[in-house]
Amino acid sequence: MQVNVISSVNEARGDDFLNKTVIVIDVLRATSTIVTALAHGCSGIVPAETVQQAKQLQEPRDLLGGERFCKKIAGFHYGNSPLEYRSPEIIGNRVILTTTNGTRAIQKSLRADHVIAGSLLNAKACAKKAVELQREVAIVCAGTQDEFSLEDGLCAGLIVREFLQQVDREAQGVNDLGLAMLHAFTHAETSLEHTLLACFNGKKLCRMGLQADVSFCAQVNAYDLVPVLQGQLMR
Amino acid sequence: MQVNVISSVNEARGDDFLNKTVIVIDVLRATSTIVTALAHGCSGIVPAETVQQAKQLQEPRDLLGGERFCKKIAGFHYGNSPLEYRSPEIIGNRVILTTTNGTRAIQKSLRADHVIAGSLLNAKACAKKAVELQREVAIVCAGTQDEFSLEDGLCAGLIVREFLQQVDREAQGVNDLGLAMLHAFTHAETSLEHTLLACFNGKKLCRMGLQADVSFCAQVNAYDLVPVLQGQLMR
Repeated sequence: MQVNVISSVNEARGDDFLNKTVIVIDVLRATSTIVTALAHGCSGIVPAETVQQAKQLQEPRDLLGGERFCKKIAGFHYGNSPLEYRSPEIIGNRVILTTTNGTRAIQKSLRADHVIAGSLLNAKACAKKAVELQREVAIVCAGTQDEFSLEDGLCAGLIVREFLQQVDREAQGVNDLGLAMLHAFTHAETSLEHTLLACFNGKKLCRMGLQADVSFCAQVNAYDLVPVLQGQLMR
Repeated sequence: MQVNVISSVNEARGDDFLNKTVIVIDVLRATSTIVTALAHGCSGIVPAETVQQAKQLQEPRDLLGGERFCKKIAGFHYGNSPLEYRSPEIIGNRVILTTTNGTRAIQKSLRADHVIAGSLLNAKACAKKAVELQREVAIVCAGTQDEFSLEDGLCAGLIVREFLQQVDREAQGVNDLGLAMLHAFTHAETSLEHTLLACFNGKKLCRMGLQADVSFCAQVNAYDLVPVLQGQLMR
């Protein structure tokens, strides 16, 4: 079973997703937020590319969430902080979520057989699910404005490692970027929170007073839960 | 002084090279070959994009070198094995070199203020030179057919580390891909030859009986020499 890590959605070629399981990673913060919301009783996340699309998709009782420039969108119930989504308000409700990179990456992966949301919070569960789904795997780092983001790469490395442990195999069938991220994660593992706080997005969030988000998202395998896209809903 | 690692030439944006020092890396094997040839008395390397261009550039006494599909080009004096370029024949002569990825990457970096050839063999010397040149630095992993190659990424990580040691600084001003490669190199460092033998290009070269090339190119800081592009000549 081949596992390819892709540095950003724009790096993906036409057939990179066909017949595959795509694991979309946006550690800071969209996929961490999706995992956290579902773990706290949200009935499903609808990823939307634009603010307008999010509003159009909204049905009665649905909540609106998302960010532009890391800030909550005017009139929306929630921003993109995973911490907000632990609120009892979301239990049993859907959230329409639009973010700059993560939800766009999910939208762009729709040609895949399966699309799942990966983060440090649920890396082991993602790897297990990918093995069960028995497709080749593309791990897509959402990145930031088409640039590679360290936190997504490190998470990809962790998922590669969890995957190899699940299938009890050496790193055969992992592409070179996946091998690089496996090395990088293994080195950064013991100082993961510090590393995330020091990367581009981590520093940006700290400057905005959102250090607690970064620390939260740096937790490894906190949730045994895999958001899978079914129709327009991740759940 | 900003240092950006770029995963392949095609990933570079228009202004990524302007006013900068570009370090082109093609560990397996073009830039390792260039370094080795110059270290053994070659008077200069002329990078050429195509076989035809190489032949047109050839002047009396010039030698032709290069590969397509990892094999020596028919009628050329040398292939792309660094080991060949230790021959006394090349002393005092120019080599016109055309390879699939490395020399193309050099050609595509011509908008930079300075273009230098980096490899594991001369990483420390490259970092020192880049500091002296006092420009922002773009480290371009040549990769393979526009895909990221592990060996180039690890070399980029080593050059980042050598650079930070030269300027006696923490990893401020290094982009996220550079930080990822710094982590990856630091983890792979103690098993570098093994890691290179196990990556995509390493395995391909081994299948072609060129394992000795991979082992040779895996040597760190064997040469204190920096090929710099001057006009059409690297020397």
